[in-house]
Amino acid sequence: MTSTEPENVRRVACVGAGVIGGGWVAHFLARGYDVTAWDPAPDAELRLRRLVDAAWPALTQLGLADGASTDRLTVTATLEEAVGDAQFVQESAPEKLDVKRDLLARLDAATPPGVVIASSTSGYPMTDMQTDAEGAGRLVVGHPFNPPYLIPLVEVVGGERTSAEAVAWASRFYEVAGKSVITMDREVPGFIANRLQEALWREALHMVANGEATVKEIDDSITEGPGLRWAFMGPMLTFALAGGEGGMAHMLDHFGPSLKSPWTRLEAPELDKALYDSVVAGCDDAAAGRTIADLVAERDQGVIDVLRATGRLPGAGKESGK
Amino acid sequence: MTSTEPENVRRVACVGAGVIGGGWVAHFLARGYDVTAWDPAPDAELRLRRLVDAAWPALTQLGLADGASTDRLTVTATLEEAVGDAQFVQESAPEKLDVKRDLLARLDAATPPGVVIASSTSGYPMTDMQTDAEGAGRLVVGHPFNPPYLIPLVEVVGGERTSAEAVAWASRFYEVAGKSVITMDREVPGFIANRLQEALWREALHMVANGEATVKEIDDSITEGPGLRWAFMGPMLTFALAGGEGGMAHMLDHFGPSLKSPWTRLEAPELDKALYDSVVAGCDDAAAGRTIADLVAERDQGVIDVLRATGRLPGAGKESGK
Repeated sequence: MTSTEPENVRRVACVGAGVIGGGWVAHFLARGYDVTAWDPAPDAELRLRRLVDAAWPALTQLGLADGASTDRLTVTATLEEAVGDAQFVQESAPEKLDVKRDLLARLDAATPPGVVIASSTSGYPMTDMQTDAEGAGRLVVGHPFNPPYLIPLVEVVGGERTSAEAVAWASRFYEVAGKSVITMDREVPGFIANRLQEALWREALHMVANGEATVKEIDDSITEGPGLRWAFMGPMLTFALAGGEGGMAHMLDHFGPSLKSPWTRLEAPELDKALYDSVVAGCDDAAAGRTIADLVAERDQGVIDVLRATGRLPGAGKESGK
Repeated sequence: MTSTEPENVRRVACVGAGVIGGGWVAHFLARGYDVTAWDPAPDAELRLRRLVDAAWPALTQLGLADGASTDRLTVTATLEEAVGDAQFVQESAPEKLDVKRDLLARLDAATPPGVVIASSTSGYPMTDMQTDAEGAGRLVVGHPFNPPYLIPLVEVVGGERTSAEAVAWASRFYEVAGKSVITMDREVPGFIANRLQEALWREALHMVANGEATVKEIDDSITEGPGLRWAFMGPMLTFALAGGEGGMAHMLDHFGPSLKSPWTRLEAPELDKALYDSVVAGCDDAAAGRTIADLVAERDQGVIDVLRATGRLPGAGKESGK
């Protein structure tokens, strides 16, 4: 590849400027890039500038890169003008396969050779989107979370025709641009985080559809419960702590049978020895030398910090007459 | 009922003193109650006092109630001594239906009349657990999250034989004791939060079983992604914001078709007009007058506060040479 080194990129193009594309624009501007943007909607520029202006105070709080400015955004009249001089392209078009396919082929034709083009798709495999592009090797998925200017995660994965170099380049570029990257070595519909949150979302929709819980109860059950832990310790490690000093192995012994219970509409996998061992070993890896006691202390401090940061320290209890 | 008013409770009994029962002990001590505890394990007292001592610095940071002290814990030799003088009983025995059934009947026989007895069960309906108890009317589920001394949520629900008064009394008591309560009006296996996190957990186990993601990638995908939002804004309202200025209705129009995609092993419900309308109206209720712009501002500030509180402000980006 003849592309610019990730560290030297200065010009980024964002194609599609809705909630996600506009969020990317805000992120790249805040990190000091020159950004060109294009979107076919007639009022796209107005909405985009409104979104960037709304995000700017938050980005200023986080700390802008030297020279970062909303003045470094140029909204172009054509797709070709947006990408003609770009060193990286982020595509955030509507989530329709034929639209993505067609747009990626057009972007490939208009973007300088060697420049990586990433799609924000929420779940389409790149293999299905890169069918019509001649330069399919430089097309990757770079899936962000909303809003891309605040949530660090980007999931990077290539399609069957994507080059390993393009995947590595994109992962490195996103890191340089301040994101937290998970590079997947195989395509899975929905990637990782969306599969997980989609399972939760589907169960939530079933509950609403059956009158088992209201939207507010669903939201409160997360923000007052497991959501507090998930801001800084993932579901696997936090579950391990439910096993007490015995960790994940004890947790699986204790709660494994619940996998047979009708606790959700999602069937659980068979908790055979291979899965049991993978989960226990995976938790050990993730703990990276921290003992259960270390993790408990870390979790406790994390919950306290998050409660305090979000203005929700529990009341002083009965003595305060609350 | 002849029970003490929730505001006047001073003596709480905790039966079962493992991770969850011990966490309840720590919570009630920190809130200034006298706590009696019983657990049949030979080393139970040692482990319990170790757990309480480990939790105490966190509880001190949160702010102890007047007079709160670990000295107010009494570990008894028998179940009968633990509950004989109690004004509220919290049962946290191992998650086995026959154990729960038997224990709740014993607790009912030993606890003063009118005193409410709550079970920490992670998912059994009270209807199935209260079968052997004569005083089934005072038996409720009070399901906490780990650790109960830090995570505010308690889900309260009765069984078929539980009195409405006992459910109302328990909900009020937990509120007085500093918890955040969701009172369910019907039994659903797994209640609300556990159904939601169990769906996510099952999908995660499938991914590990199939080599699609490692334990660490699963955890990182949540803590660097949607988990940051869920600490203060639930999945339904945060999804609504993915719809931009159109909110949940626009989000469902845009991402509704993804429900047909194989993004998880969980089948989605049909997004018919009734469900669509329920979700949109439920979001309006949950928003309680806040506009989409208000919610976006709230979400952005929340993410920044959580990132800052957990020491993870994004790097200054390329200019800093990160």
